[in-house]
Amino acid sequence: MATPLRLQTLEPRMARLCLEVESFAREPFGSPPPLPRLQGGRLLLSLSGGVDSTALAVIFACLAPRLEATLFAAHLDHGLRGESVEDAAHVAELCDRLGIHLTSERRDVAGLAAERKIGVEEAGREARTELLERVRRDCAADVILQGHQLDELAEDMLMRLIRGTGWPALAGMEAWDPARNLLRPLLLTPKSELADLVRSVGLTWREDATNADPGCTRNRVRLDILPRIAVENPKFPETAGGLWKLARLDAAYWEERMASVPLHHDRDGISIHSPALREAPMALRLRVLKNAVESAGPGQPLLDSLRNLDRAVMEKRTGVVVQLPGSKEARVERDRVRIVPGKMSR
Amino acid sequence: MATPLRLQTLEPRMARLCLEVESFAREPFGSPPPLPRLQGGRLLLSLSGGVDSTALAVIFACLAPRLEATLFAAHLDHGLRGESVEDAAHVAELCDRLGIHLTSERRDVAGLAAERKIGVEEAGREARTELLERVRRDCAADVILQGHQLDELAEDMLMRLIRGTGWPALAGMEAWDPARNLLRPLLLTPKSELADLVRSVGLTWREDATNADPGCTRNRVRLDILPRIAVENPKFPETAGGLWKLARLDAAYWEERMASVPLHHDRDGISIHSPALREAPMALRLRVLKNAVESAGPGQPLLDSLRNLDRAVMEKRTGVVVQLPGSKEARVERDRVRIVPGKMSR
Repeated sequence: MATPLRLQTLEPRMARLCLEVESFAREPFGSPPPLPRLQGGRLLLSLSGGVDSTALAVIFACLAPRLEATLFAAHLDHGLRGESVEDAAHVAELCDRLGIHLTSERRDVAGLAAERKIGVEEAGREARTELLERVRRDCAADVILQGHQLDELAEDMLMRLIRGTGWPALAGMEAWDPARNLLRPLLLTPKSELADLVRSVGLTWREDATNADPGCTRNRVRLDILPRIAVENPKFPETAGGLWKLARLDAAYWEERMASVPLHHDRDGISIHSPALREAPMALRLRVLKNAVESAGPGQPLLDSLRNLDRAVMEKRTGVVVQLPGSKEARVERDRVRIVPGKMSR
Repeated sequence: MATPLRLQTLEPRMARLCLEVESFAREPFGSPPPLPRLQGGRLLLSLSGGVDSTALAVIFACLAPRLEATLFAAHLDHGLRGESVEDAAHVAELCDRLGIHLTSERRDVAGLAAERKIGVEEAGREARTELLERVRRDCAADVILQGHQLDELAEDMLMRLIRGTGWPALAGMEAWDPARNLLRPLLLTPKSELADLVRSVGLTWREDATNADPGCTRNRVRLDILPRIAVENPKFPETAGGLWKLARLDAAYWEERMASVPLHHDRDGISIHSPALREAPMALRLRVLKNAVESAGPGQPLLDSLRNLDRAVMEKRTGVVVQLPGSKEARVERDRVRIVPGKMSR
């Protein structure tokens, strides 16, 4: 068997890459506390066998001695493509080579999709989430690590822009989600550097053939639109990473500000104390109202509806009712705004 | 001569379009006061002869009686294309038809570019701005109106995303710039509706052949990238308009917040009182620091430099110097941060 991978024996550029990932993982930019527990922790890697997750395994295998961390891995064989057996074999071999304890599981994702009446992609996501959560508990892992990288972040940002997501969510997925113990330590690392790293240690990865299928928006964005953007700005993923950092700062800021105008949940729905709302600036008021409407059930309000509601609250027009998507409605009462969920208002 | 255009004789859909433009022009979303003076005002239209500015002339000719406004127009014949004489003739005929007093001027923009050592596009912009400002004074006009529309806003947003512009400037140009008396009343109106309007009153417009030239980024964005985005979301310009509204709200908010941590200008540069800065949240501190650095001369700071500087200020590390682009530097003093411009610091 080959000698174990060590940070010290990597090419200097590759060792630097690992240390940058470590530094980002220890303190993901603008993330809310509690920060992920890495030092002395039990880390569960989500491995598909693609270049990103192969690099994730290599990087954390090299960092494990420094972090005094114990590594585990989980792989879902979704049984959808003929090659999925080979993907699972690749991941098994990789974990064997790196000395990582692997839980690999085959699941009939197509069957699950039919059973739950959802799309195959969503079923795959659900099955993977379930497996990761189960393995995390079984291994008593502190953190789940996923391999999303900078090129995917740029892709995500562009998709959100195209379908219309407000700021700061526009900037894409989070690096650290404490509620799900989920960390994406490669989020600001370009895919090309991950590929270089995997090659530099003499390993390979599996290509996901479905990534070339122009039948879904994500692939069209990656294959048709991003290459045209790269012509204008070859460093577009890094540019997107900069915008992501700004968004993290603003997200942390607005989260804190929104806590100053709390939502009250009772059996009639959700209400907000109007005097507190009236003291807030408009950029905060509309965010609070949007959050209240979305918390009351499915259906996203348009900005223009929120502005109408806001105007009624500011002008103390008690009795005004604003209709909202999902057959929800907002009522301006004497000293509160009440959002009534769809079912109960009928 | 044809009968004059009137709001009352337009098709209902077109009359509604004019009234929507009026309502947006009276109160451009989230714009800072003073609002543009339209009622009883003297309005100067910037006309190129393209579909947008032809529609602008039609709409304001129809609105003028309601607004009790007097209309003027200015056209710059930049002498760059063979067709520029015909463009000027089209604008002259249009203004004649609509009863608008026109100032049309021919200028050797290529010569101006050589003389000022700038690009032809920039020279055209400068010549147009100079003409508009001169005509505005000559006519004692209150407001200059430009024809930028929603499709251009979406184009602008995408270009800013590609080259990397922070929030909220990411969302594109302003509808109302009080410092330049400049109003863009069509900014949330799709181009197709403007074309429908011009056709519905039996008028034509001039196509700018340079719009099809793939030699500049803007045209590649419009011709190559936006059509691919339209496949995913045919209403993308409207989606971009929604994001623009959010950005206006946030811009107004941050402008007000930034005024709470003022910059002091003296002969040594720009300084900020550190105790005031330390009380602000990070999203505000970094914006104030960025504004200070940009106010001190050319060169845009990276977010990471701003964070280093911010950390030094928060930790009261008196004496720390942070190097900044444009050979500017930031010095942490006892109770202020000082930004020293490039030339003076050498």
